Amino acid sequence: MNRYAKDFPILNQVVNGHPLVYLDSSATSQKPIQVIEAVEEYYKKDNSNVHRGVHTLGTRATEDYEGAREKVRRFIHAASPKEIIFTRGTTSAINLVAISYARTHLSEGDEILLSPSEHHSNLIPWQQVAKVTGARLKYFPLEPDGTLDPAKAEVMITERTKLVAIAQVSNVLGTIFPLKELARMVHRHDGILMVDGAQSVPHMKVDVQDLDCDFLAFSGHKMLGPTGIGVLYGKERLLEQMEPVEFGGEMIDHVDLYESTWKELPWKFEGGTPVIAGAVGLGAAIDYLEEIGMAEVERHDRRLAAYALERLEQVEGLEVYGPREDRIGLVTFNIRGIHPHDVATVLDSEGIAVRAGHHCCQPLMRWLDVSATARASFHIYNDEDDIDRLVKAVQKAKEFFGDVLG
Amino acid sequence: MNRYAKDFPILNQVVNGHPLVYLDSSATSQKPIQVIEAVEEYYKKDNSNVHRGVHTLGTRATEDYEGAREKVRRFIHAASPKEIIFTRGTTSAINLVAISYARTHLSEGDEILLSPSEHHSNLIPWQQVAKVTGARLKYFPLEPDGTLDPAKAEVMITERTKLVAIAQVSNVLGTIFPLKELARMVHRHDGILMVDGAQSVPHMKVDVQDLDCDFLAFSGHKMLGPTGIGVLYGKERLLEQMEPVEFGGEMIDHVDLYESTWKELPWKFEGGTPVIAGAVGLGAAIDYLEEIGMAEVERHDRRLAAYALERLEQVEGLEVYGPREDRIGLVTFNIRGIHPHDVATVLDSEGIAVRAGHHCCQPLMRWLDVSATARASFHIYNDEDDIDRLVKAVQKAKEFFGDVLG
Repeated sequence: MNRYAKDFPILNQVVNGHPLVYLDSSATSQKPIQVIEAVEEYYKKDNSNVHRGVHTLGTRATEDYEGAREKVRRFIHAASPKEIIFTRGTTSAINLVAISYARTHLSEGDEILLSPSEHHSNLIPWQQVAKVTGARLKYFPLEPDGTLDPAKAEVMITERTKLVAIAQVSNVLGTIFPLKELARMVHRHDGILMVDGAQSVPHMKVDVQDLDCDFLAFSGHKMLGPTGIGVLYGKERLLEQMEPVEFGGEMIDHVDLYESTWKELPWKFEGGTPVIAGAVGLGAAIDYLEEIGMAEVERHDRRLAAYALERLEQVEGLEVYGPREDRIGLVTFNIRGIHPHDVATVLDSEGIAVRAGHHCCQPLMRWLDVSATARASFHIYNDEDDIDRLVKAVQKAKEFFGDVLG
Repeated sequence: MNRYAKDFPILNQVVNGHPLVYLDSSATSQKPIQVIEAVEEYYKKDNSNVHRGVHTLGTRATEDYEGAREKVRRFIHAASPKEIIFTRGTTSAINLVAISYARTHLSEGDEILLSPSEHHSNLIPWQQVAKVTGARLKYFPLEPDGTLDPAKAEVMITERTKLVAIAQVSNVLGTIFPLKELARMVHRHDGILMVDGAQSVPHMKVDVQDLDCDFLAFSGHKMLGPTGIGVLYGKERLLEQMEPVEFGGEMIDHVDLYESTWKELPWKFEGGTPVIAGAVGLGAAIDYLEEIGMAEVERHDRRLAAYALERLEQVEGLEVYGPREDRIGLVTFNIRGIHPHDVATVLDSEGIAVRAGHHCCQPLMRWLDVSATARASFHIYNDEDDIDRLVKAVQKAKEFFGDVLG
């Protein structure tokens, strides 16, 4: 175990007779004891509803909740806490932009540009926008290694481009996309850049002002925080133009029998009792990551991706997808002739948790010309030993199915 | 402390020099150690993403999550787990019905009937539906004590009534509304009944098949569970007619570059990584409530409401709102000449947490002809001693301001 792994109680267990090696952090990360205890402490000491209370617990819970918002603001370097909207997760955050911004700002003749590598959560909301508004979806061409050539992107971005929606890091390929260049290109034509940060924010320093993205969505549960909490960052100017999507407690200003008005940012987008304990847990996850330092997290997660790539590529009959360089946090692969579900099942019998399937990226699976892949993904609690065990188990799977299949 | 209070660690604290008396459970309830530990255990042992994994943790997390759904189904006696949609809370659940059902099923000339006592979360979504569809909002008349006369409701429910949206228990008045009768009336005209169960499900046995409601929304955090998890119950026949609102991972079946199809119920409404730990915590809260027995919970919460009413009515200069009988879980009041925020502040200085404000019910405040009220609300961990302390502190507040105001 590496020096961070000891903070993660779940890793200290035996699965199918072997010490657990958890290599599924791109689906959801594990939680350090510091995060688990922050949630527990909140419920044991401060729990109350927020904003509305004049009693002591209400004040404390409000400070906890708004304090978490400030931690998020600082973590991604947003200009103001008004730009930090708490959501249920990345999917909710992207849908909020699709419904509240894109459906009212786009119309026939406009174009939405995506990468074919997008996660369904950053793809289907735009299909729906296209259906409702008459805007057209277009897809950037990817290079054979799953990277995007900025020059080819530039040709496609025109005055018709109202929105580019793209993940900063692909959850299948590990590709890091050239967002700063895309931001410049789309802004030149007065379009906006929507970033799916689900796989980047947990693994590298993301500075929204440096990137100059217009929206950024990410999830707490992939960055060592709890399930059920996520963030939409948006430039204040854009959020101001948007109407709320969920109506009810917390987001209102004045309510009459037939008309109502909304609170200012960020609360107008936070109808209902917020995910208070979730925000507190996310704040604790940010504290934990910042204690390590995001530069160190990035170095670590790049190093493991490079090491896994190098080791797996040496296995005969194994195909690895995505770029050879500039990738972070994961390696996706297939063993020739064996279905990835069978690979994952054999790995599981060795105590190794990897994911197998389409990874919510069916169009990308077709682009790769496969029905599914296996994926090993990493976070700060993993190390080279975990990858050595993975490679050894992959060899075993190969031999097992080699024998079975003759 | 009563025998349940010892399970709630937060209650064992001193606030402003006094042992805490928490009387704000209608805003959010406290959590027993069994719920806190269930969430903790989930993160320490099983945490993984659900449905997609072939590894051991993924299987366990899926069983935890779907197991929680089955607990909810049994708890409210739904016919099938397909009828149980996990949401972020009551507000999200009501908005889902408003957006996905009402906006597509209602049109000009149709009527939506509400009570003027509705929480904003069961009011503004219908204002928005009215705006978008041209349907008309109408309000039942309330009796002076805040109850609804079924005969007067019956006159208003006609073939134009497509939807009646009403809370089972008012969060301000404590009124229990006659839902079974309303269900019969609205069904006679082929309309549907949407129930806001936020204040009823935590305090009494709610059987959706016995009530024959069409939709029921409620929140985990008001029924001893975590923040960020709630439920929409809907009759399968109606949910089948509805389109998803949030698009992305988990809710899809087949995804092409330009078209997609959805999973079956209940998953088509659960885009993105679900609130897995929240569902687990809600399941533990249901276990806890069922261990006590909902009949006992209801007896207890009715008894406390009756006792608080009786004691507070004896205080001179104090006005109590809502019905004298058949109320549950709370008492709302004002002290003549003193703003309820000031009352709450004095009570807080005595370690007593009550809420003051409009309770997300601005129209009801105008109906009561007040700008705000104080509200003391109860759950299983409260007892008569808490109410005695409340009454004593109310007396003190009266004297304090009596002296100040002369």
